[in-house]
Amino acid sequence: MKYQALLDEIYSEVLPMLGNGRVADYIPALSHIDPTKFGIAIETIEGERFEVGDSQEQFSIQSISKVFNLALCIRLIGDQVWERVGIEPSGNPFNSLVQLEYEKGIPRNPFINAGALAVTDLLLDHLDQPNGDMLKFVEKLQCSNVKFNSVVVQSEKDHGFSNAALVNFMKAYGNINHEIDEVLDTYYHQCSIEMSCAELARSFLFLANAGVVPASGERILNVSAAKRVNAIMLTCGFYDQAGAFAYQVGLPGKSGVGGGIVAVVPGELSIAVWSPELNEQGNSILGIKVLELFTTRTGKSIF
Amino acid sequence: MKYQALLDEIYSEVLPMLGNGRVADYIPALSHIDPTKFGIAIETIEGERFEVGDSQEQFSIQSISKVFNLALCIRLIGDQVWERVGIEPSGNPFNSLVQLEYEKGIPRNPFINAGALAVTDLLLDHLDQPNGDMLKFVEKLQCSNVKFNSVVVQSEKDHGFSNAALVNFMKAYGNINHEIDEVLDTYYHQCSIEMSCAELARSFLFLANAGVVPASGERILNVSAAKRVNAIMLTCGFYDQAGAFAYQVGLPGKSGVGGGIVAVVPGELSIAVWSPELNEQGNSILGIKVLELFTTRTGKSIF
Amino acid sequence: MKYQALLDEIYSEVLPMLGNGRVADYIPALSHIDPTKFGIAIETIEGERFEVGDSQEQFSIQSISKVFNLALCIRLIGDQVWERVGIEPSGNPFNSLVQLEYEKGIPRNPFINAGALAVTDLLLDHLDQPNGDMLKFVEKLQCSNVKFNSVVVQSEKDHGFSNAALVNFMKAYGNINHEIDEVLDTYYHQCSIEMSCAELARSFLFLANAGVVPASGERILNVSAAKRVNAIMLTCGFYDQAGAFAYQVGLPGKSGVGGGIVAVVPGELSIAVWSPELNEQGNSILGIKVLELFTTRTGKSIF
Amino acid sequence: MKYQALLDEIYSEVLPMLGNGRVADYIPALSHIDPTKFGIAIETIEGERFEVGDSQEQFSIQSISKVFNLALCIRLIGDQVWERVGIEPSGNPFNSLVQLEYEKGIPRNPFINAGALAVTDLLLDHLDQPNGDMLKFVEKLQCSNVKFNSVVVQSEKDHGFSNAALVNFMKAYGNINHEIDEVLDTYYHQCSIEMSCAELARSFLFLANAGVVPASGERILNVSAAKRVNAIMLTCGFYDQAGAFAYQVGLPGKSGVGGGIVAVVPGELSIAVWSPELNEQGNSILGIKVLELFTTRTGKSIF
Repeated sequence: MKYQALLDEIYSEVLPMLGNGRVADYIPALSHIDPTKFGIAIETIEGERFEVGDSQEQFSIQSISKVFNLALCIRLIGDQVWERVGIEPSGNPFNSLVQLEYEKGIPRNPFINAGALAVTDLLLDHLDQPNGDMLKFVEKLQCSNVKFNSVVVQSEKDHGFSNAALVNFMKAYGNINHEIDEVLDTYYHQCSIEMSCAELARSFLFLANAGVVPASGERILNVSAAKRVNAIMLTCGFYDQAGAFAYQVGLPGKSGVGGGIVAVVPGELSIAVWSPELNEQGNSILGIKVLELFTTRTGKSIF
Repeated sequence: MKYQALLDEIYSEVLPMLGNGRVADYIPALSHIDPTKFGIAIETIEGERFEVGDSQEQFSIQSISKVFNLALCIRLIGDQVWERVGIEPSGNPFNSLVQLEYEKGIPRNPFINAGALAVTDLLLDHLDQPNGDMLKFVEKLQCSNVKFNSVVVQSEKDHGFSNAALVNFMKAYGNINHEIDEVLDTYYHQCSIEMSCAELARSFLFLANAGVVPASGERILNVSAAKRVNAIMLTCGFYDQAGAFAYQVGLPGKSGVGGGIVAVVPGELSIAVWSPELNEQGNSILGIKVLELFTTRTGKSIF
Repeated sequence: MKYQALLDEIYSEVLPMLGNGRVADYIPALSHIDPTKFGIAIETIEGERFEVGDSQEQFSIQSISKVFNLALCIRLIGDQVWERVGIEPSGNPFNSLVQLEYEKGIPRNPFINAGALAVTDLLLDHLDQPNGDMLKFVEKLQCSNVKFNSVVVQSEKDHGFSNAALVNFMKAYGNINHEIDEVLDTYYHQCSIEMSCAELARSFLFLANAGVVPASGERILNVSAAKRVNAIMLTCGFYDQAGAFAYQVGLPGKSGVGGGIVAVVPGELSIAVWSPELNEQGNSILGIKVLELFTTRTGKSIF
Repeated sequence: MKYQALLDEIYSEVLPMLGNGRVADYIPALSHIDPTKFGIAIETIEGERFEVGDSQEQFSIQSISKVFNLALCIRLIGDQVWERVGIEPSGNPFNSLVQLEYEKGIPRNPFINAGALAVTDLLLDHLDQPNGDMLKFVEKLQCSNVKFNSVVVQSEKDHGFSNAALVNFMKAYGNINHEIDEVLDTYYHQCSIEMSCAELARSFLFLANAGVVPASGERILNVSAAKRVNAIMLTCGFYDQAGAFAYQVGLPGKSGVGGGIVAVVPGELSIAVWSPELNEQGNSILGIKVLELFTTRTGKSIF
């Protein structure tokens, strides 16, 4: 029970911060979420689990899916992925379209939307049933209950002009091989995956365990690839706030506009938080605070 | 002798890569360096030392001094430094002037030139003899032999139009308080510091040791601040190659155009490499390869 | 016959410049054009006509249609057009996507692709049959033979990822009201209009005649609006070469990647040139030279 | 007396617009000007003069001097000036520093600060006494009373960090040959020239008269060069408002932050207005309105 008391303590301490952020409203399907939802879950590579709050309730993982997307692509084609997407932080307050233009259609990294769309296009070269195969991949990570939310998929499609602009723009530069609609459909399905904190924590454990799922012993990525996915999460996982997250929290992680954040302590555990109220950079306010307190009190920053 | 054999092996393996880069030539004082110089040094927090090649020969540390600059400033004023400089990777292939303009004179982070100049301006608020005080600060880190190279200082001044543009531009936005020439003089002195790999490795040990110089027991920064400097080195320490360095090497570090690179394994050791031939991003080609092999073979990536 | 001898002279003088440019190849339907085609036509507001070379052969007017698009929109809604598009030169070597992002989806002017697409969206508010109505509008200008080239329309659609990116991006910012495909279809039809130099010269005469078609006496625009369309052609009519065209030629005009250029001498005449070989800015090499010689020898620059 | 009644009418009509702008305050020497000053002067190439209000009072011409700077440089070296400065509108809301960086130190045009500084550097190659020679040049234009304001010069130097940044930045790219301080001193002297509306109108008459000073018959520029300076004024004379000025007024002209605007009707006259209250783009509010009414009522737009 080593982390239970700490989680309980942090949960109580952070709870009063509710009310200071905004739930994502760029698509109707996300805007109706209860802003007071709040859960935390830890799972260690030895299989211990610690949870508090709404840790069993599923929510839209949104951009957290970009890690599954990248991991699956590296599993399939290895370092070839870097021919189509960069590996540097975007550092651009104006989002990625400007950089796409300067850099001739090559997205800066796989965790901005343009980059995830390019990786999705790569996946389509190698997967017969990209949506089904993605669910199977997450199942391998021991999360059998994962599903797409078709309402979210449709809502993304109805309002996805910005993503459509990105894919069209990359295709104009020759960096998208498949049909625009096919790439977007696959990408929106990934974004619509619903998981709980408990499931997210478990699903990221292979990244804390040098590429192997602890429960099954199945190797997902080789040691080097797993560490490198962590490195990219640290440098690129939080949009314009990547530097601040590394500074405050000091763990590799990834956030989504659904209010989820998941982070990895290499060699030990993964931790997931869910709270839908976002700061201006699109990251969960309570989520970041929980992780900051967690590393400060445990000393488990990687630095 | 645990790392000696490994260093010898890596040294021999990397040596044939000589001849593929270019020595820095933006100032004459640096362009005359012997491009075949090559040294490596490790020092652990227990005081063990391992060296190979030209590890005792001093060279111009250049941008590595930005870490001393930041550490001294945080030591003096703590988190106030972040009112004048950002903490995010710059991610900009066009260097920092564009961003300075968009962001109204606030540099993106303390490890780009503009950011180091802003931090230098802050130091001038608190130091009576900024040049002497900087040498004393490095002496505290147990490197008594440190000195400025006045030829390099003068060469920087004679060719420093780009840095003069940055300081003037920030002053136009009200982000520089002191005289242009005073800020530049102090900055150029920092850049001109000469140290050997052995000295660099020792001087960075406090960052591997949670803020305390192992040999003297003197605390330079508190635990949190020390970890945070490491975080900034990881996200911002290698200009446009920060993401790639995190990916390949997986350690916090800082490079300089003099060909030096120093990196930190938290809780264990620091390692410095010197080889003047640079890649297009201005980082030492052999230096990066040495560090990549070191973490691959020891498994000591922080990820 | 006052201009015939001059046209013949200029034609002979400029003809040897053939072979120095590239025919537009971004869509297959344009890349097959005979690069040696070359024609010039002048029509005065008194109805005199002067022609040489392939002046009666129709070609794809491409971006020249942006002037018809704007004129028709101003005719319908007047200055309200400026709520949706700017009036300043774009001055951006990286094309317009960067500016669109900085300026929140408002295109810089109506003669860059993004601007013409926004104006097209506006037209759709007011026209029941936008394609047919556009042909009728050009017919009013006394060019009865005008038609769309459906092969070009299809070719634009098949390769129009960049334009699709622009419309999607503007729609993400709320600056497009109609369906993406509807806006693009209307825009591509405009671009595919085929006219000869003789027809182009005639169709622009109303802009030389303070808004009135000389032959019919029909007023298309009021005096002020007609002059203002000329002003926009001068400042924005030649992409990155607008300043150079004003400097060398000194007339309001508009070019298209089909190799056509048409210019206006206010109060006197209009002149159209066709030669498909383009310079790097996408303007007809021979076309610009013809116009430069015309104003130099007649002194008819507006400056 | 053909224009006197019109000037009187426009003066009265525009006067109530006072109170809506801000006097330039970037240097103290300009901020103390009486904001209610308002004068207009016309001079025709036949020598007729029409004036109203404070048309005989001298004020700081500021950026209007960029036209003298360019004209003198073209007089000395002709088209060679375009090797060091571009000819396209800047079109950049973020001012010129961004473009300078993208375009490797070549300013977009001679009427932005960076461009005028590059032209000034060119002048220094050819003038022994650049300040005295500039006054002599303006005297040739029949304005004997012209002088520098040394208080303004000093104020510019004390607050000119932005201009110092521009010159240093261009020098870093090799586009400045002379000493930084020498270029800035010459530039600031030009900006500090004081002239009245009557003097400004007269001094620009050679641009309305194909390059010849009407009163003396002295040729300043050849016909083509004079027209081309007009073309550059039209496309680049009003910063971010160049397109709007061409649209509303339709004359080549140049404004300064001292509140002056001068415009040219080719073949006829020049007109100068002074009113220190500026709009957000740094152009005189009353000045622009006066010129708009003038061209609307006389029909003398060049379009």
